[in-house]
Amino acid sequence: MQIVKDYGPITGESIAEKLNLTRATLRPDLAILTMAGYLEARPRVGYFYTGKTGTQLFADKIKKLKVEDYQSIPVVVNENVSVYDAIVTMFLEDVGTLFVVDEESLLAGVLSRKDLLRASIGKQELTAIPVNIIMTRMPNIAVCYKDDPLIEVAERLIEKQIDAMPVVRKTEKGYEVIGRITKTNMTKAFVSLAKDDV
Amino acid sequence: MQIVKDYGPITGESIAEKLNLTRATLRPDLAILTMAGYLEARPRVGYFYTGKTGTQLFADKIKKLKVEDYQSIPVVVNENVSVYDAIVTMFLEDVGTLFVVDEESLLAGVLSRKDLLRASIGKQELTAIPVNIIMTRMPNIAVCYKDDPLIEVAERLIEKQIDAMPVVRKTEKGYEVIGRITKTNMTKAFVSLAKDDV
Repeated sequence: MQIVKDYGPITGESIAEKLNLTRATLRPDLAILTMAGYLEARPRVGYFYTGKTGTQLFADKIKKLKVEDYQSIPVVVNENVSVYDAIVTMFLEDVGTLFVVDEESLLAGVLSRKDLLRASIGKQELTAIPVNIIMTRMPNIAVCYKDDPLIEVAERLIEKQIDAMPVVRKTEKGYEVIGRITKTNMTKAFVSLAKDDV
Repeated sequence: MQIVKDYGPITGESIAEKLNLTRATLRPDLAILTMAGYLEARPRVGYFYTGKTGTQLFADKIKKLKVEDYQSIPVVVNENVSVYDAIVTMFLEDVGTLFVVDEESLLAGVLSRKDLLRASIGKQELTAIPVNIIMTRMPNIAVCYKDDPLIEVAERLIEKQIDAMPVVRKTEKGYEVIGRITKTNMTKAFVSLAKDDV
């Protein structure tokens, strides 16, 4: 690594010469350093030093985690169900956020525990109010895609102070809900990093 | 590193000899490899190879994060306040979990949004029920300490399916609540890892 730092870009042959080693002896070491990301190899140019520390390389690895690696199954309700039924669904399914869909099964709104709690201390009869009166609706819904970097979605959850986001697929008519990503999923990702599980 | 792998434990002097280098030339390299955790140095024994990869070393680093590095300020209510007032406090303070304390300011219970939502769809008058009727109470409360490894608390939040835990100080009479650790804090820790911020 010191030789590559000092003389890079440098060919494997020249490195071997400086170390008084054969190219063949050196090859596995160069392969490991390249795989680990400390060195980069370019055809017809040679090896150069990436300048990355072990920690930076690990940060790069975290950035490669995708939403689809950690997402959960979404729980949806129709926009005409009552607030009372939505609360019951939330308890039965044991989730913190429900997604509301229209008659074409496209994303129409989001209901958090906070939204439902706010409605429940109001004076209205919960069985008489449809969820589309109290839900957060498009275009005010933060959505994400299964290929999004997990870490970016984590940052958006924090920034927007929300617990969950629908994972969607864009169609001509609107968004189909294909998943749910929450702070619980982020906590699991954090744990799996420490277990060297990613 | 290959020399230490093959011959360790081995003194710096012997390594230098094998490389045809002076001890002085080698010293900074050995210092870096030791600091990074790849090698370990024992007085009067020499260097040996720890067998840890960059990823394992990063996992070790995560395991050193403490609760106190990420905890938030706790929001507490007295055990005699009504469920209605607790809900209002939850909205005013914008938290997902309240801690309930007794007349000596010791931890008596925990109130999640889920607990409050469940109570709010009941038939009772929310201003007439004290929180100690519906709260999760000692000894069923999961608590943690400011020196606990963050990652262990993250695992317990997932295992117990709760959003938050009180950070406590143990006294002769009971637990004083000194902090709050939540899945939001865990999400922030996850983000800070990717930013190489720990």
